[in-house]
Amino acid sequence: MSRFACYALLVGIACFAQEPAAPPQPVRSPELDSAGRVTFRLLAPKASQVLLRADFLKARQPLSKDEKGLWSVTVGPLDPDIYTYEFVVDGVRTIDPNNPSVKYTSRPSETSSQIEAPSRAPMFYDARQTPHGIVQIRWYHSKSLETERRVHVYTPPGYERGAGKYPVLYLLHGAGVDDSVWVGLGRMNLVLDNLIAEGKIAPALVVMPYGYAARPAPLSPSDVLSGDRQRAGFERDLINDVIPFIQANYRVETNRDDRAIAGLSMGGGQSLEIGLRHPELFSRIAGFSSGLVRGVTEQIEQLAAGAKNPNEQYRLIWIGCGTEDRLYPANQQLSELLTKKGIKHTWRSTGGAHTWQVWRRYFHESAPLLFPKTRERAGR
Amino acid sequence: MSRFACYALLVGIACFAQEPAAPPQPVRSPELDSAGRVTFRLLAPKASQVLLRADFLKARQPLSKDEKGLWSVTVGPLDPDIYTYEFVVDGVRTIDPNNPSVKYTSRPSETSSQIEAPSRAPMFYDARQTPHGIVQIRWYHSKSLETERRVHVYTPPGYERGAGKYPVLYLLHGAGVDDSVWVGLGRMNLVLDNLIAEGKIAPALVVMPYGYAARPAPLSPSDVLSGDRQRAGFERDLINDVIPFIQANYRVETNRDDRAIAGLSMGGGQSLEIGLRHPELFSRIAGFSSGLVRGVTEQIEQLAAGAKNPNEQYRLIWIGCGTEDRLYPANQQLSELLTKKGIKHTWRSTGGAHTWQVWRRYFHESAPLLFPKTRERAGR
Repeated sequence: MSRFACYALLVGIACFAQEPAAPPQPVRSPELDSAGRVTFRLLAPKASQVLLRADFLKARQPLSKDEKGLWSVTVGPLDPDIYTYEFVVDGVRTIDPNNPSVKYTSRPSETSSQIEAPSRAPMFYDARQTPHGIVQIRWYHSKSLETERRVHVYTPPGYERGAGKYPVLYLLHGAGVDDSVWVGLGRMNLVLDNLIAEGKIAPALVVMPYGYAARPAPLSPSDVLSGDRQRAGFERDLINDVIPFIQANYRVETNRDDRAIAGLSMGGGQSLEIGLRHPELFSRIAGFSSGLVRGVTEQIEQLAAGAKNPNEQYRLIWIGCGTEDRLYPANQQLSELLTKKGIKHTWRSTGGAHTWQVWRRYFHESAPLLFPKTRERAGR
Repeated sequence: MSRFACYALLVGIACFAQEPAAPPQPVRSPELDSAGRVTFRLLAPKASQVLLRADFLKARQPLSKDEKGLWSVTVGPLDPDIYTYEFVVDGVRTIDPNNPSVKYTSRPSETSSQIEAPSRAPMFYDARQTPHGIVQIRWYHSKSLETERRVHVYTPPGYERGAGKYPVLYLLHGAGVDDSVWVGLGRMNLVLDNLIAEGKIAPALVVMPYGYAARPAPLSPSDVLSGDRQRAGFERDLINDVIPFIQANYRVETNRDDRAIAGLSMGGGQSLEIGLRHPELFSRIAGFSSGLVRGVTEQIEQLAAGAKNPNEQYRLIWIGCGTEDRLYPANQQLSELLTKKGIKHTWRSTGGAHTWQVWRRYFHESAPLLFPKTRERAGR
């Protein structure tokens, strides 16, 4: 019987489990010990091999089977963070059926179980007793794409009671997921609530559009446009629909000095390409573990060859990538190209792979540069 | 190679797939034909049995294997709706690795793949080109539970520009999931946008609190309180923290005539118990496929024995359950008890099981009763 079925009985709710009764002893997985080690378990008597695949492991780790068909392995200790893992049972991936914490993405090959290794002090992404911003889920009509589309918008604490205008960041997601992921997995709202409470950033709005030039999630194969139609379609929707919608419905500054664009993976490539093509719209750009499109290199060449000095146009070009990420060489080359062209930028070469552990930290680290305190903005 | 990896290459993004290369011919699953039939496929050469388990099937259906280890089965035609399914591979459940649409819940035993059988006309839950409400994700400090908690709030189209006060519904989720599910799977915002555009309901706010007296999702075993602590804790948080928070931050009516409570499964039981215990707070109650706590029966006995006529206290008691739901007998008995005690109510005995197909329809059907047009509300 599952933990929730047990719980349902405890509170007197009639049991509505549709599955046949499982063994009376529930499987504990994952189990954390006081030293930060974690034991993973799976009941699979018919299986001949069970592997643990996790973003905290360099290679898959085999589990051992006991006489009852219960497989287990202990790993760690793990540093405080939020990790993902899954089991591979005779070659078929599956999430941990005993762990209620599931990492959702609309890419099933990345749907995983989640484990949060605890910390003594609250982490930068934990909900603390501070004023909280609001995340709004909105639908708008996109004339560019002739469809209803969804966008997530973060407004900082006090926005709804205030009167002034705020700077705004357009924050883009990666491939295969959607506009909810920066909140759901990135916890961007809690990261910003904490940074604002600590006085480290200026309050700002963050707009998270849907990165595909197609219907909102769930994606279906016919929804994914290929190549240039996707690139041009998303850019048109962002510039001709999303930005005007935000400016019509929120108190945001409308000058380029107070508008930034950032993103991760596919969204990092989009941020760099669109940000560098439109200096009239954006003054600050950040790309996290960016999936680099050819357009980015072309934009840099054009920018360097243009009449205006790029270093007077952009106040921030921030590029970061983890050394274990397959995208690392491309990002490193991008930084080298910028250096060769004399374009000032921040190049952050860090540890880590293509994971949310890296992106939560990049967002936390770059937010004070994307949302500098008012005095510094004005003092330029 | 996955569909998204292919797509990434098409748009020129460096491929960041962490998996070894899969066969060149991607597996199409699910595949819909023009007659509404669906073919499900899974590549699993090592497996000895693959079953399809789905909320549109009464029993699991076996897939057949071809010489390359590709399993498949064709079912249907399916009526237009949103369905969920998964594969059972040698006894281990797994989502469809080729379908990007994943139904997320924090209960891994219910994490499934999703398929939307299309309709010629837009369905009541589809995004149409109408004015849209806003869903807000908010955090508040719960004094009752001494923690930061999350709540989802729907404000109807035009709310943010208006000045008047609105009726409010408290809408509760089921066991094992969280306050995001009525939006994510229920599409409650799109259902209401459409009903408001059609002039069928009065615009109202909907507040979706987190139903556990514990930390917000992801749940961990230690977060789930048992028995009375859960029941009393949730009720305290709702009445002493959530309702005051909403009334302090939104333009909502604060009288019982304009306050309703509804929920599904565990949340249906909570709605009935709390709603019937607090006639001073709620005038309308709805329970969908309710998980019935002992407290509900006790409340009905007390209500019938009390000095006030229950039929003058409640303007709506709505109970619905599908005949294929294991909770059907308990809900039917509840209706019989209400009838026996002379308490007016609506009893909707419908087809269907314990699924979102049923709950989306119950919400769509009861919303006009929970949010009657202003004239009718005033005309009582």
